[in-house]
Amino acid sequence: MDFSKCWLDYQPIECKEKAFSTLSVLCDGRVVKSAVEEYCLAMEAMTGAVVEVTPEGGRECVSLRLDAALSGADSYEICREGDGYRITGQSESGVLYGVFEFLRLVRTGHLASLPLVNGPEMPLRIMNHWDNMDGSIERGYSGNSFFYRDYEILCDERTEQYARLMASIGINAVVINNVNVHQRETYLITDTYLEQVKEYADLFGRYGIRLYTSVNFAAPMELAGFDNCDPLNPEVAQWWKETAAHIYEVIPEFGGFLVKADSEGRPGPFTYDRTHADGANMLARALAPYGGIVIWRCFVYNCGQDWRDKKTDRARAAYDNFIGLDGCFDDNVILQIKNGPMDFQVREPVSPLFGGLKKTNMILEVEIAQEYTGQQIDLCYLLPMWREILDFDTCAAGEGSTVRRIVNGELYGQKLCGMAAVINTGDDYNWTGNDLAAANTYGYGRLAMNPSQSSESIAREWTALTLGGEVEDTVTQMLMGSWSTYEKYTSPLGIGWMVTPHYHYGPDVDGYEYDRWGTYHRADWRGLGVDRTPAGTGYTDQYNEPWRSVYADRTKCPEELLLFFHYVRYNEKLRSGKTLIQHIYDTHFEGVEEVEAMAETWRQLAPKLAPDVYGRVKERLERQLANAREWRDRINTYFYRKCGIPDEKGRKIYE
Amino acid sequence: MDFSKCWLDYQPIECKEKAFSTLSVLCDGRVVKSAVEEYCLAMEAMTGAVVEVTPEGGRECVSLRLDAALSGADSYEICREGDGYRITGQSESGVLYGVFEFLRLVRTGHLASLPLVNGPEMPLRIMNHWDNMDGSIERGYSGNSFFYRDYEILCDERTEQYARLMASIGINAVVINNVNVHQRETYLITDTYLEQVKEYADLFGRYGIRLYTSVNFAAPMELAGFDNCDPLNPEVAQWWKETAAHIYEVIPEFGGFLVKADSEGRPGPFTYDRTHADGANMLARALAPYGGIVIWRCFVYNCGQDWRDKKTDRARAAYDNFIGLDGCFDDNVILQIKNGPMDFQVREPVSPLFGGLKKTNMILEVEIAQEYTGQQIDLCYLLPMWREILDFDTCAAGEGSTVRRIVNGELYGQKLCGMAAVINTGDDYNWTGNDLAAANTYGYGRLAMNPSQSSESIAREWTALTLGGEVEDTVTQMLMGSWSTYEKYTSPLGIGWMVTPHYHYGPDVDGYEYDRWGTYHRADWRGLGVDRTPAGTGYTDQYNEPWRSVYADRTKCPEELLLFFHYVRYNEKLRSGKTLIQHIYDTHFEGVEEVEAMAETWRQLAPKLAPDVYGRVKERLERQLANAREWRDRINTYFYRKCGIPDEKGRKIYE
Repeated sequence: MDFSKCWLDYQPIECKEKAFSTLSVLCDGRVVKSAVEEYCLAMEAMTGAVVEVTPEGGRECVSLRLDAALSGADSYEICREGDGYRITGQSESGVLYGVFEFLRLVRTGHLASLPLVNGPEMPLRIMNHWDNMDGSIERGYSGNSFFYRDYEILCDERTEQYARLMASIGINAVVINNVNVHQRETYLITDTYLEQVKEYADLFGRYGIRLYTSVNFAAPMELAGFDNCDPLNPEVAQWWKETAAHIYEVIPEFGGFLVKADSEGRPGPFTYDRTHADGANMLARALAPYGGIVIWRCFVYNCGQDWRDKKTDRARAAYDNFIGLDGCFDDNVILQIKNGPMDFQVREPVSPLFGGLKKTNMILEVEIAQEYTGQQIDLCYLLPMWREILDFDTCAAGEGSTVRRIVNGELYGQKLCGMAAVINTGDDYNWTGNDLAAANTYGYGRLAMNPSQSSESIAREWTALTLGGEVEDTVTQMLMGSWSTYEKYTSPLGIGWMVTPHYHYGPDVDGYEYDRWGTYHRADWRGLGVDRTPAGTGYTDQYNEPWRSVYADRTKCPEELLLFFHYVRYNEKLRSGKTLIQHIYDTHFEGVEEVEAMAETWRQLAPKLAPDVYGRVKERLERQLANAREWRDRINTYFYRKCGIPDEKGRKIYE
Repeated sequence: MDFSKCWLDYQPIECKEKAFSTLSVLCDGRVVKSAVEEYCLAMEAMTGAVVEVTPEGGRECVSLRLDAALSGADSYEICREGDGYRITGQSESGVLYGVFEFLRLVRTGHLASLPLVNGPEMPLRIMNHWDNMDGSIERGYSGNSFFYRDYEILCDERTEQYARLMASIGINAVVINNVNVHQRETYLITDTYLEQVKEYADLFGRYGIRLYTSVNFAAPMELAGFDNCDPLNPEVAQWWKETAAHIYEVIPEFGGFLVKADSEGRPGPFTYDRTHADGANMLARALAPYGGIVIWRCFVYNCGQDWRDKKTDRARAAYDNFIGLDGCFDDNVILQIKNGPMDFQVREPVSPLFGGLKKTNMILEVEIAQEYTGQQIDLCYLLPMWREILDFDTCAAGEGSTVRRIVNGELYGQKLCGMAAVINTGDDYNWTGNDLAAANTYGYGRLAMNPSQSSESIAREWTALTLGGEVEDTVTQMLMGSWSTYEKYTSPLGIGWMVTPHYHYGPDVDGYEYDRWGTYHRADWRGLGVDRTPAGTGYTDQYNEPWRSVYADRTKCPEELLLFFHYVRYNEKLRSGKTLIQHIYDTHFEGVEEVEAMAETWRQLAPKLAPDVYGRVKERLERQLANAREWRDRINTYFYRKCGIPDEKGRKIYE
């Protein structure tokens, strides 16, 4: 086995109960079968005793039941019963989730918390893979794809382990290929690959997961010789209908399509003067007869901007492109909206689309892959960020209109909604490059299941399961502080970017400043920041009140987003009483100090950790420290060279 | 034929003389045979009449003779004789050069300038190809290699045409592969490729050209399993001896090796605490028995510099690395020295090594490939720059110690010296991407033959031969102004760089500023430039007087190099009375205006040019204009944002 077990590493436990050794299975089905297999594998590993699986009930056993009357799709109940335990699922998936939860409680010694009733809050809990069939992964930082190698689809031990990992955290949908659909991947929905895709669909199906593919909007042109892919061309629509029919013939449980259209050079309906609704609905009607859905990404902006142009604002783009289409999408279309208006920066405001659309299915897209947040070299536990996003009150329908209540379906009574995340896995031994980055993978699933769970409690769970209870406190502390630390030593106060172009790792303050991507900091000798108030680009008007006013007001704007919304002079005072420039210097010195402390903390954990895990993370922390120092010095020097204001504390700023 | 004839396009002439139709060949040899073939091909194309070749003399003919007593190696004499002409060569190559010269005079109608005696001034006139065997060309801007495709060596019509083009401008040495010798290229000196290399050597030999290869200093390790390539290891030396013996067995006329060692990651003697002399001499001794030579590049510097470090100065590196070895190199070793201390920027001082080394063979290396000078998109005729370099008086042995007199062998009586150039050709139809870039290819050869020829007269020759006499004045004017124009809109006053990292095209002011390459401008809110005086890095001390004092003195330093040698404040006055910042603004506006004028000039030439040539160059000029505007705006905005000083003339500078 050349891959780790991650959080499914069932180590022997102290507290063994007799009931654990008998599994009474009072329901059936292929997902239940997976639950039973997981139970046996786990219990035998943890207790050393063979599990007897029986179709009979009994007093001193663990029983699995199915009860469709339980409230909430795929929910489960776990309680004591006689001298044993009962796990009841609302569905087969509910049973599977219940078993995983039970095993987690056993493994971490938390059975005292029973009884519990639980269930997934988000209807869709999706993983997006940006894997390409040549084996590469776009923005992958953990090796190559374990789905593909040299245009072949791999179905092996590792993909099975993958399915178990996903099911254990409640994932119920997986998109198996990159949203940038290249030439060969266009064929995934054809007979060239469908039989192999079906193998995946079957494997995933056994774990309650539906398979989706990213599709190329121009597929009729590339696959069938059409001279256009106009969504209102009946022949194009017909081609998609036939294609869908054939997909469902082979894979009756196929989930549907994810589409990146008219974005960063991808084809789309704009070419034919059609709307995104025209495009999405055309595909949706092909899938509707089979219950399939279309997930349409809102990451649409002008990626050929002129840096001289201060009126065009990339932050406005998603809202401007989609708000007018609210209510125009078919029922089986969902818009997938990135958490912020730019692109997965360490700090962004929440996308105003969430507070804008009211009659459209929405999915919140986050990025587990640490593209801009340290690339799984630097530690950056993202759960606190995601919690902030989910808890953001859009005020779309009065107070309490949080993003969470929008994408869990509560606010507008929607069924097709939830969360999607760009996964951070690859074929590295530890799956995620940095062992600790798996906390984000794990945490994403847990959060989508239950967005009220705290980041800290998720960190504790993951740490206990993966590294053991002995290091739980310390590693949890490291994880919890890491986002703030990363933010401190990188770009300041919500301005974002300042990264090496293309790679997106390491500092380059002007790297994107004169480029075409709409990502500018506008620093000059007086100050920096982008004026997005009505006096500037007017982006703030895309928010509901009170945010519209709050963001537009320099004195009320949340300070962590200050430079995202305002141009601020270096000598202006922040609420702390510090000037902006002093704040920049201070946070950058602090950020490095915090990384130093983190590395020291890790060194002290050495005796309590497996040597390979210890060594791998140590090496990452050393690279993170070098990176943090480079950020500190470049940022400080860059701004010192611009403004000439020295550090009040006289620390070393290179000239 | 999918390639143009360049300057060997023998168009019909008006003034046909009867003598042209009889070629009296009074000498022989394979190079003479090439001369005869060229004569016939050219005369028949120009006159339409078949040439009679005869071994007899006569009154109304053109006769070819060989006279070893003529003064100067490979020289020639052309004069009237009877009703015809006599071309006498000091050697076979002399005959060939004489024929090419004669054909040039016929083609351009300049036979009235006879009689003439001429000959190559530089002993070695070398082309360096940075071609890789996969078909790519490092820093190639004219398509792929015509030497290699997919690791195969091509020997076809195009390579023959290439050999004719090179011979016609006096090239007598060609290095057939990139100085960065990759894995497969390491095998060029083994039986894997030697037979094919021999085909090239034979072809080149027929045109008086010797073939050289770039070699991998670590070849004994890669090819023969050695665990080191220590130049003082007798087994390593023995391996090279045997390798050389075998090369000369197959290719008796093999020229020798070009070596890039201990540079930008290439292996070299430093690994073993040996000197460059140890390394070069070891190779030289392997080649000496056969008359082969080693050309050792001086492009050695620390490419892992820390931008924070203001003491290390890349400009110092070549001198610091080599000056202590003066006199330590074997007679058949030549140091190849780049014209400037950095790397082929649009403006650099002349390398102080030329004025420093006195007992070492030296070659001046220039770059025809426009890596930093517009990549054959932008027009940049480089002859004026090369003339300045050759005419620079190093004062090494009193006044008049010009670079020209050093590398032509005059000053120190050296035989192995001359010029080398990185060629700008590829498999594009027109060979050089931009048709006008061939003026640099042509001009380099002409200049190495005769460094006293003016840039303008070379431009006239090339234009007349390639585009016809009708556009000679106008195109010559375009060429002559183009270097200055390019300099105006790119990095100011000798500071260099400010280009997009890796690509080296287009502006990125801070692109290399915080990187590891030692190429910094050090701009801050007060000014910019690198202090290379004794108060700074001390680089100026590498020059002989008076340059040492001149460069170190802010008031005497040639202004075009001001920022190379000094840190200057934006508001300091230049000799023109303008402030530095106003000079930057003015030159950048002017540069763009000059490109606009150039493009307009070209448009007016349309009726006088072949439509394909016209169209190709027009497209390049349009791209140049876009590039010039981008440079203007980014440079102006960058400095405006740093210093806040507005343009006195109120022109548009973006904020």
